[in-house]
Amino acid sequence: MSRFSEPQDPVFQRLNASLAFDRRLWPYDVTQSRAHARMLAAQRIIGDADRDALLEALDAVEAELVAGAFPFADDDEDIHMAVERRVTEIAGRVGGRLHTARSRNDQVATDVVLFTRDAAGHATRAIDALAAALLDAAERHLDWPLPGYTHLQRAQPVYLSHHLLAYVWMLLRDRERFLFAGSQTSALPLGAGALAGVNFDTDRAAVAGELGFERVVPNSIDAVSNRDFVLDYVSAAATCATHLSRLGAELVLWSSEEFGFVTLSDAWTSGSSIMPQKKNPDAAELLRAKAPRTVAHLSALHGVLHALPLTYNKDLQEDKEHLFDTVDTLDVCLAAATGMIRGARFDRARMSAAASDDLIAATDVADLLVKRGVPFRECHGIVAGLVRIAVDSGRTLGELTDDELTAASEQLDPAEFRALLTQSSWLESKVSEGGTALARVREQLELARAALA
Amino acid sequence: MSRFSEPQDPVFQRLNASLAFDRRLWPYDVTQSRAHARMLAAQRIIGDADRDALLEALDAVEAELVAGAFPFADDDEDIHMAVERRVTEIAGRVGGRLHTARSRNDQVATDVVLFTRDAAGHATRAIDALAAALLDAAERHLDWPLPGYTHLQRAQPVYLSHHLLAYVWMLLRDRERFLFAGSQTSALPLGAGALAGVNFDTDRAAVAGELGFERVVPNSIDAVSNRDFVLDYVSAAATCATHLSRLGAELVLWSSEEFGFVTLSDAWTSGSSIMPQKKNPDAAELLRAKAPRTVAHLSALHGVLHALPLTYNKDLQEDKEHLFDTVDTLDVCLAAATGMIRGARFDRARMSAAASDDLIAATDVADLLVKRGVPFRECHGIVAGLVRIAVDSGRTLGELTDDELTAASEQLDPAEFRALLTQSSWLESKVSEGGTALARVREQLELARAALA
Amino acid sequence: MSRFSEPQDPVFQRLNASLAFDRRLWPYDVTQSRAHARMLAAQRIIGDADRDALLEALDAVEAELVAGAFPFADDDEDIHMAVERRVTEIAGRVGGRLHTARSRNDQVATDVVLFTRDAAGHATRAIDALAAALLDAAERHLDWPLPGYTHLQRAQPVYLSHHLLAYVWMLLRDRERFLFAGSQTSALPLGAGALAGVNFDTDRAAVAGELGFERVVPNSIDAVSNRDFVLDYVSAAATCATHLSRLGAELVLWSSEEFGFVTLSDAWTSGSSIMPQKKNPDAAELLRAKAPRTVAHLSALHGVLHALPLTYNKDLQEDKEHLFDTVDTLDVCLAAATGMIRGARFDRARMSAAASDDLIAATDVADLLVKRGVPFRECHGIVAGLVRIAVDSGRTLGELTDDELTAASEQLDPAEFRALLTQSSWLESKVSEGGTALARVREQLELARAALA
Amino acid sequence: MSRFSEPQDPVFQRLNASLAFDRRLWPYDVTQSRAHARMLAAQRIIGDADRDALLEALDAVEAELVAGAFPFADDDEDIHMAVERRVTEIAGRVGGRLHTARSRNDQVATDVVLFTRDAAGHATRAIDALAAALLDAAERHLDWPLPGYTHLQRAQPVYLSHHLLAYVWMLLRDRERFLFAGSQTSALPLGAGALAGVNFDTDRAAVAGELGFERVVPNSIDAVSNRDFVLDYVSAAATCATHLSRLGAELVLWSSEEFGFVTLSDAWTSGSSIMPQKKNPDAAELLRAKAPRTVAHLSALHGVLHALPLTYNKDLQEDKEHLFDTVDTLDVCLAAATGMIRGARFDRARMSAAASDDLIAATDVADLLVKRGVPFRECHGIVAGLVRIAVDSGRTLGELTDDELTAASEQLDPAEFRALLTQSSWLESKVSEGGTALARVREQLELARAALA
Repeated sequence: MSRFSEPQDPVFQRLNASLAFDRRLWPYDVTQSRAHARMLAAQRIIGDADRDALLEALDAVEAELVAGAFPFADDDEDIHMAVERRVTEIAGRVGGRLHTARSRNDQVATDVVLFTRDAAGHATRAIDALAAALLDAAERHLDWPLPGYTHLQRAQPVYLSHHLLAYVWMLLRDRERFLFAGSQTSALPLGAGALAGVNFDTDRAAVAGELGFERVVPNSIDAVSNRDFVLDYVSAAATCATHLSRLGAELVLWSSEEFGFVTLSDAWTSGSSIMPQKKNPDAAELLRAKAPRTVAHLSALHGVLHALPLTYNKDLQEDKEHLFDTVDTLDVCLAAATGMIRGARFDRARMSAAASDDLIAATDVADLLVKRGVPFRECHGIVAGLVRIAVDSGRTLGELTDDELTAASEQLDPAEFRALLTQSSWLESKVSEGGTALARVREQLELARAALA
Repeated sequence: MSRFSEPQDPVFQRLNASLAFDRRLWPYDVTQSRAHARMLAAQRIIGDADRDALLEALDAVEAELVAGAFPFADDDEDIHMAVERRVTEIAGRVGGRLHTARSRNDQVATDVVLFTRDAAGHATRAIDALAAALLDAAERHLDWPLPGYTHLQRAQPVYLSHHLLAYVWMLLRDRERFLFAGSQTSALPLGAGALAGVNFDTDRAAVAGELGFERVVPNSIDAVSNRDFVLDYVSAAATCATHLSRLGAELVLWSSEEFGFVTLSDAWTSGSSIMPQKKNPDAAELLRAKAPRTVAHLSALHGVLHALPLTYNKDLQEDKEHLFDTVDTLDVCLAAATGMIRGARFDRARMSAAASDDLIAATDVADLLVKRGVPFRECHGIVAGLVRIAVDSGRTLGELTDDELTAASEQLDPAEFRALLTQSSWLESKVSEGGTALARVREQLELARAALA
Repeated sequence: MSRFSEPQDPVFQRLNASLAFDRRLWPYDVTQSRAHARMLAAQRIIGDADRDALLEALDAVEAELVAGAFPFADDDEDIHMAVERRVTEIAGRVGGRLHTARSRNDQVATDVVLFTRDAAGHATRAIDALAAALLDAAERHLDWPLPGYTHLQRAQPVYLSHHLLAYVWMLLRDRERFLFAGSQTSALPLGAGALAGVNFDTDRAAVAGELGFERVVPNSIDAVSNRDFVLDYVSAAATCATHLSRLGAELVLWSSEEFGFVTLSDAWTSGSSIMPQKKNPDAAELLRAKAPRTVAHLSALHGVLHALPLTYNKDLQEDKEHLFDTVDTLDVCLAAATGMIRGARFDRARMSAAASDDLIAATDVADLLVKRGVPFRECHGIVAGLVRIAVDSGRTLGELTDDELTAASEQLDPAEFRALLTQSSWLESKVSEGGTALARVREQLELARAALA
Repeated sequence: MSRFSEPQDPVFQRLNASLAFDRRLWPYDVTQSRAHARMLAAQRIIGDADRDALLEALDAVEAELVAGAFPFADDDEDIHMAVERRVTEIAGRVGGRLHTARSRNDQVATDVVLFTRDAAGHATRAIDALAAALLDAAERHLDWPLPGYTHLQRAQPVYLSHHLLAYVWMLLRDRERFLFAGSQTSALPLGAGALAGVNFDTDRAAVAGELGFERVVPNSIDAVSNRDFVLDYVSAAATCATHLSRLGAELVLWSSEEFGFVTLSDAWTSGSSIMPQKKNPDAAELLRAKAPRTVAHLSALHGVLHALPLTYNKDLQEDKEHLFDTVDTLDVCLAAATGMIRGARFDRARMSAAASDDLIAATDVADLLVKRGVPFRECHGIVAGLVRIAVDSGRTLGELTDDELTAASEQLDPAEFRALLTQSSWLESKVSEGGTALARVREQLELARAALA
């Protein structure tokens, strides 16, 4: 019997029902129900025969779900009610004992925390795969020079390995973030009941142990109203997606005809419906475009929790679609980035030519003067003057005359100046720790490989 | 033949394919293809027989889609390619003529603008239905007093009609917003080609006329890169959803035992899996919880467009899921709000009792003194002092003694003071335009009904 | 006297006080107070002498504020209380009459709506200035070819005028959005009192007339709880800022050495602290970077309003900083974009060379075949095959042999094919309405100039 | 000398200059300059006398800044240039040596990471203070019953201590988040130069040691383009602010006349400009209203980083205002919450009366039947039927007749049923770990106090 005398409005059911999206939680729902049934029996809250009947029914339900043969009913509001209904159909009246000492409030929190824990683990593995692909690419292109850019202006030359490793370090931080998110899924909500605990002497620690949790949530109210771990996961995903958007944007840029630094493989590009010549970096563009989506999920989740009084409120049902789409988006993006990097073909000649622009040696010229004792700020001014003369007269720095050079500063030795305007020296003089000199990049590669191992 | 020598990576296809969500655009795709084919023939770009074959095939495709019998293929990347493929299967080689003088870039923009136009129209009608339900409720509860709250503290009494009408005015503004969004869908993108126009002397005006547009987009580059109309729709939806979140929150609050101002019907509430007594306002909570979701879609769309170079980029594919979910969310929320308001039962006694708290007459007492010539700011201080005496001594204002009253101000006539502490006079003295006096509320009802008509 | 027995905590004052940011509302506060005082006297609620004393004091206050000599006090909570306090200091006890029939709730709503109305007007004028600068640039570069890009890949050539005009159309839509936002500021909140109307027979229409409103807000509850007009302004600003981010991003890209399409003037670029050669497009980058800020303000405003019960709540104080920063950000961004466009020097040779890449004639070759009767989809395949042969063998399309051409399709006349690979014909063949052919661009220029006039 | 021939446009300066907000970084800028100068001398890049002159000048600059006497110049673009300019004014030409082997790119990253590290530390301390205040309140109200709510409907009674502790656990998680954010500030960017490392054999480890970092950033490109630590801080702040919004919302709700569970102290409330009786929970409302602001800063930061190519871009200047406002907002919110909790006076009678509603014993009745062997799902139905009878007939559960009870279930013993409807038993029967029984709450208090210590 129900306390309601009127059926639910169909529009209400459309608004309210979560089965369309929460059905993917079934593996967690079945798993936690098994642990719950075992604990109930161990605590003498149900009998052993009841437990066995429940476990058998849960096995049958799982088999149906795996096989895609589970008979969902029109009025299954969510996956939890669907599973319990089916257990009861299979096991008979004893099925009604499964929900003893449990509420949907702690049940759903438990499913979601289990799902998030798995998702965080999966994300770290996918990140490792991408970082490994980038590391491999860095090793393959150890000493390929290209311009480093600031403000998208050529600034100073770097090796491609050094540039690719920058993404590896971002990803290693992303991994730390997902490990943190994972650490926030280590307490079991189940056993909190609706909000206040339950009227039975349950053994939450046993359930926690069986389900792989480190401890139980110490406050039953917090257990049913907390979704911080979802925020933690989605925040980690948003940062990772933002990193991927930078990688995607750079691949789009570098595969333009104007840059021409990289050619993406056919497997990761597509054509145009109208322009037969086009080979478009769609995958890289989508990598770029997916970040705002994950960030928006994070905002939405904060919005859902904003000003929400304790304890459980239906608003919390809005956690799932944001979480699930974030998981799926990140998953495909990390896999796509890995595939794209593996298949990318860099163009040594194009990059090297761009890196030969002698204006990007200007800092090195200034530092030459520093070594002659001129304060850096003055050196900067002297070289800026030379740059202006060169640019205004349409010449390179190397084409300035000896007179022009010595007029700029008596400390400037034209021969030394010209010797310096040799590309490799600019790269190899960046000897500071973390710099682009090859010895430093090799150190860095080792560090990164160790961090990843 | 293709310019690609390698097949697409399955992960890329998973990332890239939009058919799962853009298939709902099919009615617009078929309609625009019909108009396009007719125009091509009228302009002698294809022959009349070709046109007829294409139209016949489009009819067949439409019938299959209506019947759910359309044979989607594994490598259908999107609904546009699926429809063209099927047209060619049905009509033969002539199907290959359909894409003459058209690109997917202008085609998809046209589908989306048509979809958005319909959605904006639908939203205005759903808003009207909710506004009408609120108006009806206002009329049925014309003179039911309840406390008006500021800062969730009882402030001054108002009639329930007046309170409900506040939502009507919000909705009438929402309607204006959707009308504006609709106005931004009045220019046809089709005919822009990939980005630069097409090599044929097309008649875009004719297509615009057939498809119900007022004019053509005047710049082909803008035509394929513009998604402003999606932003306009989603922004209107976000504001409307935020209004609904206020209504939802208020229904949740008012249906608490503590307020007890309203009982939601069984059709719009649900029970608890564990607590048999519960009757939860899930629908009202979800109304509250859905606003952050629409706002997030708006942010995400801005994010997708952020810093995007012209013209078409694959990132624009990320417009659709945000738009579609916003449309669906708003649709169910407006319908649910309408149903909830229709079924809500207000409790006159509870509201009236709350409105009888004589502290909420304090402003009226102050204004009494104003009418005796005391500057308002002084009156405010005098009455604040009386309130403090009453609160500190655990009495109501009406329980203050004559001595206390005249000590506070010589201008205060105890008899008049006590006469004023009668609820109805507080309400009926709010005679200013837009105020809560019944005559004013009746004026307002007429205004609102006229605005809605 | 106050009803409080304890002073406010200093931390509370820090959290609560709004004077630091709302002081810029003073011109509106003074103006509305004048109108209010006149109305009170006209309605015989205060005497004429009181009115005159109030107006005189308001003049004095205004003079102090203009001169920066207004003596703000430590415990001025907001600009409204500061002005009223000072009026009372100047005018004496009569100052206490100014707040008759008014509450801070309707007062602040009135200040904010007046501010927003002005801001919307200002935005439309700043938009016009930028659109005019773009139009002028379009006219000066009417027939300068450059590649149009889709997916940042060269797609089809267009004229620079055509490209620049795309931004003009975006801005013209932005103008419509601000006009809409302005239309949402046309109703006067003042006279709503705290929430329920006031105990006096006021004349709100007179105040509305004096302050330039079309009508009064018809519902006093809505009057004090509505901030839709702020959302409307900020939403318009967010879309405009997103447009500017696209322009900024394109200027950054085009001023890279690799593209080299544009040189920004020294007045809009800056140097590096370390690299003497650098000339960085900081202004363009900031144009790009400011969009997320305005979008975030919009999200925050929605968040503040989310689930907020009627009527006025302190949360509404959080409208102002979001609004003000949006106004200031948009203002400087529009002015900067205008200045940058005026000073930008485009490089005809670099753009033209990029547009000469004969792969971007591929669509035109396909359409050549269409005109020979081959269905477009087949033409697309034929040309894609030619592109693949050319790319694989490192040749341009023009370097393919006659044999290769006729092997691809018997319909392909090598002479005609080679004739077509002439840049100007690709541009001038885009004859469709809105296309890049010069005659069409001239039409468009006229349309845009008319729309702007 | 400069490479620019034209001065910067004043509008550009307005857009570009960051001094207005980055001046608060000065303590970090001075500190890092000291460490940098010492390292330069230790590495023989500058002489000891130069170092001493620089350190002396930095002391003088610091003294001026502390005293508010630092002479900012009109063309100081940012705090870094202002400090260097002033050092040079004081120390003479040697000041020009300070920027040797350093760029603004690594300099600003270092200032920001130092600032963030301090902010994260400050946040943990402020969180501890609030958690301690809540713990104290929990101890003072250990056994005060109130209804626990789900869906804002009375669900099951809990003790106030239990409810308050739920916030403590949220805050303890917030603390973990800030510790994580702090861990992300443990690597030194300085020494990365513009992006590629520097031309000098610097000793970054020494600088790291002096400035309290654990290690140096291993990749110079990453060092100047990384702002993850800002995201980490702001994300932690957003979650914490969202928690505070729940606390604020609950205080608003509980201090309404309808709930009446709490009275906020005068020190944390304010009055109305028009309604003399009002005592408004402004501080609690602002606690609620500030969360969307911090969440918006987080979104904006992600937006700024979205699709940004490596390495440093001017867009990164947009990190600071978002960070600073988040820090300031969180700071005042945590302090305000602490003060409010300390001053809050709970009303035992009002809470207890609300908790006596016997409908909230329904679950306990169901569990009574469970203990008689009836499957829980059946018990739920039986009790739901009793609730319906009671509600429909306007009675409490306790007023149902024996006949009605036994008709519902033979297992239901009317005497036992009536005995159960005693409030304290409902609370004390929640014996599961984390539940509301006093013994469990005491355990929880100890756990929380240990976690906080």
